Amino acid sequence: MTKSILSSLVLILTLCTNQAAFATENTNKDDIKEQLWRTLSPQNTLYMDTQSGRIIFELAEQFSPNNVAHIKQLIRSGFYDGLTFYRVIDGFVIQGGDPSESDEHKSALAKKTMKAEFERTIDKTTSFTLVQSPDLLAEQTGFIDGFAVGRSLTENKEWLITCPGVVNLARSNSPDSGTTDFAIMIGQAPRHLDRNMSIFGRVVHGMEHLNLIKRGKKENGGMIEEPTQRSKIVKMTIAADLPKAQQLNIEIENTHTQAFKQKFAERRKKAHEFYKHKGNGALDICYLKTDVRINK
Amino acid sequence: MTKSILSSLVLILTLCTNQAAFATENTNKDDIKEQLWRTLSPQNTLYMDTQSGRIIFELAEQFSPNNVAHIKQLIRSGFYDGLTFYRVIDGFVIQGGDPSESDEHKSALAKKTMKAEFERTIDKTTSFTLVQSPDLLAEQTGFIDGFAVGRSLTENKEWLITCPGVVNLARSNSPDSGTTDFAIMIGQAPRHLDRNMSIFGRVVHGMEHLNLIKRGKKENGGMIEEPTQRSKIVKMTIAADLPKAQQLNIEIENTHTQAFKQKFAERRKKAHEFYKHKGNGALDICYLKTDVRINK
Repeated sequence: MTKSILSSLVLILTLCTNQAAFATENTNKDDIKEQLWRTLSPQNTLYMDTQSGRIIFELAEQFSPNNVAHIKQLIRSGFYDGLTFYRVIDGFVIQGGDPSESDEHKSALAKKTMKAEFERTIDKTTSFTLVQSPDLLAEQTGFIDGFAVGRSLTENKEWLITCPGVVNLARSNSPDSGTTDFAIMIGQAPRHLDRNMSIFGRVVHGMEHLNLIKRGKKENGGMIEEPTQRSKIVKMTIAADLPKAQQLNIEIENTHTQAFKQKFAERRKKAHEFYKHKGNGALDICYLKTDVRINK
Repeated sequence: MTKSILSSLVLILTLCTNQAAFATENTNKDDIKEQLWRTLSPQNTLYMDTQSGRIIFELAEQFSPNNVAHIKQLIRSGFYDGLTFYRVIDGFVIQGGDPSESDEHKSALAKKTMKAEFERTIDKTTSFTLVQSPDLLAEQTGFIDGFAVGRSLTENKEWLITCPGVVNLARSNSPDSGTTDFAIMIGQAPRHLDRNMSIFGRVVHGMEHLNLIKRGKKENGGMIEEPTQRSKIVKMTIAADLPKAQQLNIEIENTHTQAFKQKFAERRKKAHEFYKHKGNGALDICYLKTDVRINK
């Protein structure tokens, strides 16, 4: 076996499937692995079918109830079907919707401006799995229901962090100006947008399909002026609206379980012999992915 | 103009081309903009021609002199031409080279194991543009010659940070086991690899071509077993080895100029009215891109 293969295997072991480390001495390994998983609610699951494949989002109704309800209404009205990704900056953002200059053809629903849901008062009744205190850009980071969350204890506020894969409502300068168009974050987390956008969900599956969405030119701010050059949104659907047989059974790591906490406790240690330098024990929340599995 | 377009323009202004903010009262704006740019040395520039386009790297000979010299020798021997990207995990790594089980067909050069160059003693004679102190994962972060660098003053060490676009020598558990294969980082920075890999360069242009390189399955650790399924490395070339007419004139932001420092001082402030929340003034070094331009 060559070194490159070995290297692969080592990194797989340490990064992807180091599940042996989750087991405690007192617990059956398979039990604790199984506890990791929760099933996604079809009411809270968005299928975005694109020309390059299906991207699945979990909606963040606990953080952005009004924006989520609005997006669901738009989806159910068929607003997005056949529209395009018209502003795409590699390593930063994929924006989709209707970039037309005029609003005349739009429904009242599509013209409705949405009140910002950038943050909320800390919800003490909700589980919060602490990851880092302090983080570089927040007093605390942690997970709530699988979402990366920042907290300011001083201000008694918490918000969804702008990690890769989150989707927010595009807006102009006014916080309350978003209507229909959405922006999916790609590349290194643009954390300067934290507490500045209404994040309404995050990709849980199919992130790789975003790679094939046509990029715009950076010097044009990513705008793709010619509509025929843009990648298309084929259809957006709320899973619950489909017949049962067409709903996917999606399981995702439950970030409030002991198994999940142990997984990241192991990551802090970097105990594997591969690591010459063990680090300072800190974790970047946007690098911590929650694994997902789709049961056929 | 619709809100989505406005939103685009705002973000372009604030993120991409907010160069007006660089100018000081005493300096001509164009002068200070021009000071930003330095020309890449052809001796230190790697063209990686892939099936999806040319990716251009700046080599980090000041940090990894032996690894860079070795890679250059391999490139000049034609080692990589026609090989493949055989281990690709979306959002993490693109690994290329020769994954064959046997070493028999390889030259002495290709079998040579390279001594690790994970970090160096802080070079006090070199300019260091401080970005953050402390960073989440290092005592300090900053730029040296355009590269993101971490520093431990306590240990008197500095190292290249594993931001998206850096390329390192793949290895197995032994730090000194790397030979020929390389790994390009994509997605959120895998900073747990800081001080654990010999980083020998970084992408300065063509990052978007990495999107089209065929991904492997996560459950296989990204390995693409079937060679015909893999994307190809068409050719790797050191720019200086080409006839002058085929060398690109590449300019990149000089991270040691006042103009560059002003640019990031502005970013800390988030003064634009778009930002409702101004943040804590901290910057994630891996999000700070150095712009590049190619003069035809």
